[in-house]
Amino acid sequence: MLIIGEKINGTRKLVNKAVLERDAAHIRHLAVSQVEAGADALDINAGTLPDREPEDMVWLINTVQEVVDKPLCLDSPNSAALLAGISATRQLPIINSISMEEQRIREVLPIVARHGCRVLALAMDGSSISPNCEGRMAVVRRLFEESRKAGVKDENMFVDALVMSVGTESEACLTTLATMRAIRAEYPQAHLTGGLSNVSFGLPARTLLNRAFLTLAIEAGLDSAIVDPTDRGLMETLYATRALLGLDPYCAQYNRAFRAGKIGPRLEERKTDKKKS
Amino acid sequence: MLIIGEKINGTRKLVNKAVLERDAAHIRHLAVSQVEAGADALDINAGTLPDREPEDMVWLINTVQEVVDKPLCLDSPNSAALLAGISATRQLPIINSISMEEQRIREVLPIVARHGCRVLALAMDGSSISPNCEGRMAVVRRLFEESRKAGVKDENMFVDALVMSVGTESEACLTTLATMRAIRAEYPQAHLTGGLSNVSFGLPARTLLNRAFLTLAIEAGLDSAIVDPTDRGLMETLYATRALLGLDPYCAQYNRAFRAGKIGPRLEERKTDKKKS
Repeated sequence: MLIIGEKINGTRKLVNKAVLERDAAHIRHLAVSQVEAGADALDINAGTLPDREPEDMVWLINTVQEVVDKPLCLDSPNSAALLAGISATRQLPIINSISMEEQRIREVLPIVARHGCRVLALAMDGSSISPNCEGRMAVVRRLFEESRKAGVKDENMFVDALVMSVGTESEACLTTLATMRAIRAEYPQAHLTGGLSNVSFGLPARTLLNRAFLTLAIEAGLDSAIVDPTDRGLMETLYATRALLGLDPYCAQYNRAFRAGKIGPRLEERKTDKKKS
Repeated sequence: MLIIGEKINGTRKLVNKAVLERDAAHIRHLAVSQVEAGADALDINAGTLPDREPEDMVWLINTVQEVVDKPLCLDSPNSAALLAGISATRQLPIINSISMEEQRIREVLPIVARHGCRVLALAMDGSSISPNCEGRMAVVRRLFEESRKAGVKDENMFVDALVMSVGTESEACLTTLATMRAIRAEYPQAHLTGGLSNVSFGLPARTLLNRAFLTLAIEAGLDSAIVDPTDRGLMETLYATRALLGLDPYCAQYNRAFRAGKIGPRLEERKTDKKKS
C-alpha cells in the first residue's frame, strides 16, 4: 500500500506561509513526522503563483530531501514547476496529476513517459466529474488510450476514481467503489489511489466516515492513498483492514505496528495501565 | 439493521452472579443501557445448569420486560428453557440458535416453525466449522432444506456465516465475506447476522479489527449483528458504514445519531469546546 502523505500542501495556510517565508524547519517537521507515521511518499504542492512556483517547488524538494529519503509526489498544474521538480528530485517522482483535460494530456503525459514516472490520473475531464460509474469509466478508458499512446506503462498509472460527498448524494460512495472495481477488472496492472475526505464533506464527525470509507475502498482494490498519515485512527483502520483482507499475511505488519505503538493504545498509556494493575 | 445486544449473557461472570443472586437491578441496567445505546433486540442467556435454566430464563425475561419493550433473543441449547422462555415473552422472540446438529434441528426447528419465530442459524454442523466457503455453503444449504421442510420462512432465518481469527488463518475473514455473499445470492429473503469479535481472537487492539470487520460485513450484506451496542466506536462504525453504502438515505440516521451525541464527540465535550472558543 503506497501511502502518500498529503500535508506539504501550499493551499494550506500554514504551509503557504512557510513557503513564502522559507521556513525550512516547518517543512522539515511535516516531512519527518509524516514519514515516521508511515508515509511511503510525500506530496509536494507549493501552491504559489505560476511565475514563482518552479522556484518554490525546488526549494520545497531540497528542504524535504535534506531530512527524508522517500519518493516525492509533485503536485502542480504547472508544467514548468513539474519539470523543475523532476530535475531536483533524487528519486524518480510521482506526477500529481493528469485528467482528461486536453492541455494536461498534451503537456504532462510526454514528461511522464519520457522520465518513466508514476502518475496520478483523475477520472474526470477538465472540470466535470460524471455522477455515475459508466460516465467515469468512459473517461478512464480515454485516459488509458492516451497514456498507452504516450508510452506510459499501465503499472505507472495510479487512478483516482474520485468520490463525492454522501451528504449530497447517497450513492456517491457506491459509485466510487463500483468505478474502482471496474478499473481493477479492465486495467489489472494499474493502481488505485485517491483522497478520502471528500466523501464526508458537509457532514459531522467526518473522520468516522473517512475511516469506514478507507476500509471499503481497500476492499474494492485501493492500493494507494493520499492521506494524513499522522491521523492515528486512519492508520489503525488501514492496518486492521489489510489484516482482515489477507493483505498482511500472519498479521505481521499489524502486530509490528502495535508493538511500535503506532496503533492501539499509545505506548505511554500501556505503561500507565501496567503500573495501575 | 437489527442490533442484538449481547450483554445479558450468563457465561459472563457478573451476569452469572446476578442471575444466581436474583440481582434484578444489575440485569435491568444492562437492558436499559443497551436499548438506550441502540439495541433493537436483547440476547438473553441464563447460562446456568439445565435443571434450573428454564426458571432462570423466565426470571431474566420478566426482569428485562419490566424496563424495556424490545424483542428478546432466547439463547440456550436447552429446549425446555426455550419453551419456557417463549411462554414468558410478550413479543415474539428470536431463537438463538440452530446449526446442522441433528438434535437441535429435531427439537428446536419445530418450535420455531410453530411459533413463527425468527431463528439464528449457524453455518456449522455440530461442533465443526468448515475452513472454506464451499464447505460452509454445503451446511447452509442443508440448513435451509431443513428449515423449509419444517415450515420456517426464509425471511425468519438469520444466518451466521461464522468467522475465525485472522490471527491464525489469514483467509478467515475473506472466507466469511464470501460465504455471506453466497448466502445473499442463494437466499435473498434470508438475513445475515453474527458476532464480530472472533475475527480478532489472539490479536492485540482487537476493537480495531472488530470495527473494520463490521464495515466489511455490512458491505457483504450483514443486516443484523450480535454486539455490545454500548461500544461507542462500534456504533460509530455502523452508522458511518450505512451512510456510505446508501443504506441511510440523506444520512438521516447518521445525522440524528450525531445530534443525539451517540456518535462523534460526546455532547459534554462539544459544550466544552464551545466554551473554549
